[in-house]
Amino acid sequence: MPGPRFTDLAAALPATVPFVGPEAQERARGRPFFARIGANESVFGPSPAAVAAMARAAAEVWMYGDPELHDLKAAIAAQHGLGPDHVVVGEGIDGLLGLLVRLLVAPGDSVVTSAGAYPTFNFHVAGFGGVLHRVPYAGDREDPGALFARAAATGARLVYLANPDNPMGSWWSGGEIVAALDALPDGAVLALDEAYVELAPPGTAAAVAADDPRLIRLRTFSKAYGMAGLRVGYGLAAPPLAAAFDKVRNHFGVGRIAQAGALAALGDAAHLGRVQAEVAAGRARLAAIAAASGLSALPSATNFVAIDCGADGVLARRVLAQLVERGIFVRMPVVAPHDRCIRVTVGTPADIDAFAAALPAALAAARG
Amino acid sequence: MPGPRFTDLAAALPATVPFVGPEAQERARGRPFFARIGANESVFGPSPAAVAAMARAAAEVWMYGDPELHDLKAAIAAQHGLGPDHVVVGEGIDGLLGLLVRLLVAPGDSVVTSAGAYPTFNFHVAGFGGVLHRVPYAGDREDPGALFARAAATGARLVYLANPDNPMGSWWSGGEIVAALDALPDGAVLALDEAYVELAPPGTAAAVAADDPRLIRLRTFSKAYGMAGLRVGYGLAAPPLAAAFDKVRNHFGVGRIAQAGALAALGDAAHLGRVQAEVAAGRARLAAIAAASGLSALPSATNFVAIDCGADGVLARRVLAQLVERGIFVRMPVVAPHDRCIRVTVGTPADIDAFAAALPAALAAARG
Repeated sequence: MPGPRFTDLAAALPATVPFVGPEAQERARGRPFFARIGANESVFGPSPAAVAAMARAAAEVWMYGDPELHDLKAAIAAQHGLGPDHVVVGEGIDGLLGLLVRLLVAPGDSVVTSAGAYPTFNFHVAGFGGVLHRVPYAGDREDPGALFARAAATGARLVYLANPDNPMGSWWSGGEIVAALDALPDGAVLALDEAYVELAPPGTAAAVAADDPRLIRLRTFSKAYGMAGLRVGYGLAAPPLAAAFDKVRNHFGVGRIAQAGALAALGDAAHLGRVQAEVAAGRARLAAIAAASGLSALPSATNFVAIDCGADGVLARRVLAQLVERGIFVRMPVVAPHDRCIRVTVGTPADIDAFAAALPAALAAARG
Repeated sequence: MPGPRFTDLAAALPATVPFVGPEAQERARGRPFFARIGANESVFGPSPAAVAAMARAAAEVWMYGDPELHDLKAAIAAQHGLGPDHVVVGEGIDGLLGLLVRLLVAPGDSVVTSAGAYPTFNFHVAGFGGVLHRVPYAGDREDPGALFARAAATGARLVYLANPDNPMGSWWSGGEIVAALDALPDGAVLALDEAYVELAPPGTAAAVAADDPRLIRLRTFSKAYGMAGLRVGYGLAAPPLAAAFDKVRNHFGVGRIAQAGALAALGDAAHLGRVQAEVAAGRARLAAIAAASGLSALPSATNFVAIDCGADGVLARRVLAQLVERGIFVRMPVVAPHDRCIRVTVGTPADIDAFAAALPAALAAARG
C-alpha cells in the first residue's frame, strides 16, 4: 500500500530539528552532565508560590484549562497597563512564533531575520514555505536598521529581532528599537522577542503605544521566571493582531497547571528580584573565570554569557567539545564571526565551580 | 498606519472558536456551576502516582522537557507492543490533529468527516484551507463505509472517525473498523480518534499491523487517565507518518510536568481499572435517572451518556438551557436528529445527584 500523500510543502521539508536537547546528548554519551548550563534555563527555579500553585493544580488537572485564559490574560494585561485584548498566551514563544508565521506568511512570502539568530523561528518560516532573508549582525549586535531596510527591499511580511539577543547576549535600548521602527515598511510586523528582557538593564524593553500595529512583543515564563518546562509565553500586540491568533491557536493548548503556575509566578516580584540579582552576580563570575584563562566575556543583558575564545570557530568548537567531554553542557553560536564564542548559561554556584574547574583543561586540550 | 497583512487564508478565516468553556459560561452567568459534567472530563481525577510525579516535576520545571520525549515514547511503545518510531506525542489530540491536517491537507484538498462529529477537527481543516465533506451518521453511529466511499469519491487526503464516537457515545468493534479500511482509497489517511477507547468494551480498539500506512490511531491522557488540563495525547502510526510530525511540531511543546504526569499515569493500571468501574456504574445510574423521567439513554462506550429527550432539537435545547440555569453544566449534539439528545458526562455521585434532582424540573419547564 502506498504511504500518505503529504502536501508538497511538507514533503519538501527537511527532517532537521531546531535543537538537540541535553537529554539526547546524555543518552548518546551514556552518562549525565555535571552542569546543565547550555540552554539558558534558569537554575534558580520557579517562584515557590508558583511551585505550590502547580502542585495544587496537578490534583485538579482532570479539568481542562480555561481556553480563554481569562485570569492569566487579565494579570498580564494589568502588569503592562494594557487591556486583555492586547494579550495572546501560547505554548511558549516557540508556539506563538509558529502561529504568527502561519497568520502572516504564505508560501513564497519574504521574511527577514539575522544570520545566526533563533533557529526555531527559521524552522517555522521554512515550515510554512516562507523565503527567509538573513541580515548580518552589526558587530555583536543585531542590526535593526539593516533588518528593516531588508524588509523594505524584499516586501517582507514579518521580521524577527531578539532584544536582548540570543546567542550573543547583546542589546539595544528600547528607545533605539522604537526609533528604528520608523524604517519598517508599512504592513510588515516585527516579532520582537523579549524573552530575556527581565534580566536586562532598565529601559531595554520597547515602550510603544498600545495600538501600534507594527510589532508584537513576545515574553516568556521560560527564562527569568524559571519555568522553561511549563511552556507558557505571551505576546503583546494591537487587538487586531492579538485576536487573529484565536483563528488558528490550539484553544486548550495552555493547560490548567500551566495557567496556574504562570499566574502565581507573575505575582511573585520578590522571587524575580532574587533571580535578577543572582544572574547579575553569576554573569560577573563567569566574566572573571573567562579572564582568569585569558579570555574575554561579552557584556550580557541575559542569563548567559558569550565567552570569546580568542580565535575562530574551529577553536571554539574544540573548546565546546572538550567542555562537553568533561560533563559541562554548553552551546555556542553557529555563524562566523560569533562562532569564536561559546555560550555559557549562568548556573548555580556549583555549576559555575564545575565550569571554572573544567575550562583551563578544556582550553589547553582544544589548543593542543 | 496600516495593520498586518494576513495571508489570504488567515484573513478569510472566521473568528469562531471550537468550544466555549464552562469558565466563560460561569463568568457570563455570574455564578459557578454545581456540577461540571459537560466536557467529558474524568471527575475521578488522575492517578495519585501521576499527581505526585507532576508535583515533583513542578519543582524542576526550570528545565525544558526532553524534546525527543524519550522515556514517555518508550513506555507508550512498550504498552502497545510497538517501537518508539511508531509513536508521536503532542499537545493533546487537538494539537496532533492540527499537525496532521497541516502535513496532509493543502488549500483546496478534500477531507471527510461525519456531520456533527468533532468540531476541533473541522476547525483545523478550515485553518489549513481544506474542503470538508460531511457524511451523515448511520443512525446513531458514524458510518465508516460511507466515510471511506466519500473519501474515494472526493479524492480525500484525510478522513476523521472517532471510535467510540463523541457526542453519541456509540461504537463499532475494532474488527469492523479494520475491515472497513479496505474501502479507504490508496494514499488517504484515517485519523482514528480513540480518545475514549479505554472506557469501551474489549475489542473496540482497532488492531492493525504496526506498519499499516492507512491510519493513525489517536489516544489521549485527557479522558480515562483524568488529565485533560495537562495536554498530552499521542498517535500510533507507521514510521514514515510518525516521523513526519518532527518536521512541523513544536519540539519543546510537551513540557516537563506533562511528560512526568503522563509517564506515571501510564504505569498505574490499578487507577485506570477503578476509573473504568466508576464510569460503568455512573453510566448505569444516568440511564436509570433518564428512565425515571421517561427518557431513554443511548448505550455508551465512553464516560458520557447521550440522553434522548424524546422529541426534537428544540425541546432538547430547552432542556439543556434549563439544566444550565439550574447550575448543571452539560452540552449536546448540534446536528439533527442527534440534537434530540443532551450529553451528560459521568460525574461524581454528588454530580449525578445534582443532575437527578434538576432533571425533572428542567424537563417540565422545557415542555411547559
